[in-house]
Amino acid sequence: MRRPDSPRVLELSPIGHVENGVQPGHEVTWEDIDSKILIYPEWAEGLEGLEEFSHIVVLFWLDRPRQEGTPLKVHPEAREDLPLVGVFATRSPIRPNPIGLTAVELLSKDVSTLCVRGLDAYHGTPILDIKPYLVRGDMKRGAAIPEWLRRLWEEQDTKG
Amino acid sequence: MRRPDSPRVLELSPIGHVENGVQPGHEVTWEDIDSKILIYPEWAEGLEGLEEFSHIVVLFWLDRPRQEGTPLKVHPEAREDLPLVGVFATRSPIRPNPIGLTAVELLSKDVSTLCVRGLDAYHGTPILDIKPYLVRGDMKRGAAIPEWLRRLWEEQDTKG
Repeated sequence: MRRPDSPRVLELSPIGHVENGVQPGHEVTWEDIDSKILIYPEWAEGLEGLEEFSHIVVLFWLDRPRQEGTPLKVHPEAREDLPLVGVFATRSPIRPNPIGLTAVELLSKDVSTLCVRGLDAYHGTPILDIKPYLVRGDMKRGAAIPEWLRRLWEEQDTKG
Repeated sequence: MRRPDSPRVLELSPIGHVENGVQPGHEVTWEDIDSKILIYPEWAEGLEGLEEFSHIVVLFWLDRPRQEGTPLKVHPEAREDLPLVGVFATRSPIRPNPIGLTAVELLSKDVSTLCVRGLDAYHGTPILDIKPYLVRGDMKRGAAIPEWLRRLWEEQDTKG
């Protein structure tokens, strides 16, 4: 396969980080967790007008857990009773390019701090980008999912 | 503000690229564009099971347009009649970390090629990550948007 002559290494810099006190190894219900996203002063002006959106998409750097190598197939949620599937068919944090993506509720904003609910990122996680959530485009009604995921969600509801 | 002792430069590598024949400077209706996403052979196994999802989220490197510097405030769609807002309140392709994010319909998949509809990325764009679209989490019903965006969408609807 021909590969375009694009650079083989692409570089990013954090624009901020997460503060929520949640450390790796602590099991939490992320949906209920409120986090602060502290954007570094040089980028704060870029947040103007974001407060008019009720929801935002947060891109962050999955710096934990760290491990050597990236398995190409994983059991979702590390559960061996779920089928072994390709890493790109999961939201596993261990992936070739470790970018996390979560749509969250924007609770409030001041000059350089966003308060959000439901961000599944540990304390100190580097932030890469913030985007507005757009119902047109980001909302896919009736999107189909595999049987294993339907069962997992049903199970979570029952535990609820 | 205290910055965590995280690396200041984070590195990514493309896992594939886009083929759709669309070059910069050509105005197209992206919603109608079918694209192939060619995943490089070393990552192809990571796609297994993705075909059970009807929609996927594609992360890509916004390598065009290139320009010096990143404005912190922009007119959405480069339209001066729309308010000047922070770049993080828009989906402008010129942003501090140039990561594009689009949820698309997955039309078909073979071993290492995905056919998708609605990917707003030019021919040759580097692909960073593929994630399944999850109705739980990715779908935010009733997400609010600013007045300027509501007007823009209405205008687009009228134009048809």
